[in-house]
Amino acid sequence: MGSALYTLADLAAAFAAAVSGALAAKQHRLDLFGVYMIAFITAVAGGVFRDLSIGALPPVGLADWRYLTAAMLAATLAVWGDRLLHAMRNPVLFFDALGLGFYAVVGAQKALLFGCNAQTAILLGMFTAVGGGMMRDVLLNRVPAILEREIYASAALAGAAVQVAGERLGWPIALTPWFAISVCIAIRLLSLRFGWQLQLPQRSR
Amino acid sequence: MGSALYTLADLAAAFAAAVSGALAAKQHRLDLFGVYMIAFITAVAGGVFRDLSIGALPPVGLADWRYLTAAMLAATLAVWGDRLLHAMRNPVLFFDALGLGFYAVVGAQKALLFGCNAQTAILLGMFTAVGGGMMRDVLLNRVPAILEREIYASAALAGAAVQVAGERLGWPIALTPWFAISVCIAIRLLSLRFGWQLQLPQRSR
Amino acid sequence: MGSALYTLADLAAAFAAAVSGALAAKQHRLDLFGVYMIAFITAVAGGVFRDLSIGALPPVGLADWRYLTAAMLAATLAVWGDRLLHAMRNPVLFFDALGLGFYAVVGAQKALLFGCNAQTAILLGMFTAVGGGMMRDVLLNRVPAILEREIYASAALAGAAVQVAGERLGWPIALTPWFAISVCIAIRLLSLRFGWQLQLPQRSR
Repeated sequence: MGSALYTLADLAAAFAAAVSGALAAKQHRLDLFGVYMIAFITAVAGGVFRDLSIGALPPVGLADWRYLTAAMLAATLAVWGDRLLHAMRNPVLFFDALGLGFYAVVGAQKALLFGCNAQTAILLGMFTAVGGGMMRDVLLNRVPAILEREIYASAALAGAAVQVAGERLGWPIALTPWFAISVCIAIRLLSLRFGWQLQLPQRSR
Repeated sequence: MGSALYTLADLAAAFAAAVSGALAAKQHRLDLFGVYMIAFITAVAGGVFRDLSIGALPPVGLADWRYLTAAMLAATLAVWGDRLLHAMRNPVLFFDALGLGFYAVVGAQKALLFGCNAQTAILLGMFTAVGGGMMRDVLLNRVPAILEREIYASAALAGAAVQVAGERLGWPIALTPWFAISVCIAIRLLSLRFGWQLQLPQRSR
Repeated sequence: MGSALYTLADLAAAFAAAVSGALAAKQHRLDLFGVYMIAFITAVAGGVFRDLSIGALPPVGLADWRYLTAAMLAATLAVWGDRLLHAMRNPVLFFDALGLGFYAVVGAQKALLFGCNAQTAILLGMFTAVGGGMMRDVLLNRVPAILEREIYASAALAGAAVQVAGERLGWPIALTPWFAISVCIAIRLLSLRFGWQLQLPQRSR
C-alpha cells in the first residue's frame, strides 16, 4: 500500500468511525462537547490500544492532527449536516463497514511492522477496528452491539487475518491490503443484507 | 511551578478526585472495598492513561505511595466523615473543579516534559483530568456526566491549552500553571453558577 | 515456582476466567462470537493492563497462543458442555476463586521481576486478578460484582501482598506462591461459605 494511500485509508476510517460515534452520541442526547468527544474517542480508541500494545508512543491517534481534524469534521457533519447524512441510505452502517475494513487491515499491518507475531497482529487488527465502537457503546452505557447479534468483529478478524496471511505468504504488496479490506467489507455488508447471524446453539439456551 | 508545590497540587487533585469517587460509590451502595477501590481508580485512572501514553512506566499513580494514601484518606473521609463533608456547600462539585484544574495542567505539563507535541499534551491534559471521572461513571454503570450536560471536559481542555500555550510562548514559568489552573476552575465554577450549557443545535434534534 | 508449573498455573487461571466470562456472556444472550470474545477478554484483560503498565510489550495475553487456546477451549466448554459444567457445584464461583488466586500471585510476581516496587506489584497483582472480571461486567453493562458486595478483590489483594511479602522477606521460593495462592482462594471460598461482607458503616448510609 503506498504511503499516501495508506494515510488516506486510515483517515477515511477515522472519519467513518467518528461519524458513527457522533450519530450515536446525538441519539443519546449528549451535549455538543460530548458529541465531539465521543466522535474522537470512537475514531481513535482502537488505534490507541494498538499503539500502547506495540509501544508506538505517544499513540498516533492523539499525536497526529489529521485524526483529530477528521473526527471534528465528522462530528460537525453529524451535528449540522443531518439532512446530507439522511439522504444516504443507512449511513451509519455503511460508514461503519468502511471504517471496519480499513482499520482492521491497517492495524494488523502496523503490528507486523513493529515486530509482532501473526496472532498478535490479527488480534490487534481486530481490536483496532472494533475498539472504538466498543468504547463508544461502553461510554453510552449499552452492551456493545458487536457482541450481541451482528457479524462485525468477525468480519474485522477475517480482514486482519487475510492481510497477515498475505504478508506472510508473499502476496503482491500493492494488492493484499485492498483485497483484505474488501473481504472485511463484503462479509459485513453481505451479513447485513442477508441477516447472517452467529447464534448460540439452541440446546444450550 | 516549584517541585514541592507541583507535588502538593498533584496530591490535592488526587484527594479531590478520590472524594468525588468515594461519594458516588457510596450513593450506589457499593461495599467498603468497592468504595475505596472506586476512590483510588477515580484518583489515578486519568494519570495512568497519560503515563501509558507517554511511556512513563510504571504509572506514577500505581507506584507512588502518596497517591494511594491520599485516595485512602479521601475515601475514609467520605465514608466516616460525611457530617464534615455535608457541612461544606456542594462538596463534590467543589472538589471536582479543584481536581479538574490541577490535573489538566499537571497532565499537560508532564506530557510536554516527555517530548509530546502541543496537541498531544493538551489532549492528555484533558484526559488526565476527566479520565478518572469517566472510569468512575463507567464502573458505576452510568453515562459519564461530563458527556451529557456540563461544562466539564471543556474547562479541562481550556486549562491544558493555556498551560501549553504559556509554555510555548515563554510566559513566566512560575505563574503560568496557576493562571491555567485558575482558568479551568473559573470556567467550571462559573458554568455551574450560571447554568452554562453546550447544547446541540435545536434543528438537529 | 518452577517454570513449567508457573506456566500451567497461569493457563489454568486463563481457562477459569474464560469460563466465567463465557457463562456470563451466555446468560446475557450474546451471539457466538460475542461469547468467545468476552471469554478471551475476561481471560487476558487484567494481564494486558499489567503488561502495559510494566512495559512488557506486546502483552503476553495477546501474543501467546496458549492463552488464546485456553480461552477458546473454555468458551467451547461453556457453550456446548453446559451439562458437564452444571454437574459441578457452583462452577462459576469455583473457577473464579481458582483464577483469582493464580492471577493475583503470578501478576504480582511478574511486576516484581520487571523491577516494580512492592506497592506497584501488589496493586498490579490485584488488577491482574480482577481486571478481566471488571471488563466482563463493564462490557455486559452491569456494575462489577466485585465492587458491590463480595469479598473478591480484597482476596486478590491479600494473595498478592503475601507473595510480595514472601519475596521481600526471603521465604522459600518454591513454596511462597502456593501459600499466597492458597490464602487468596481460602479467603474467597470462606467468604462465600460464611457470607462474609464488607459493608459500609450503617450510620453513614
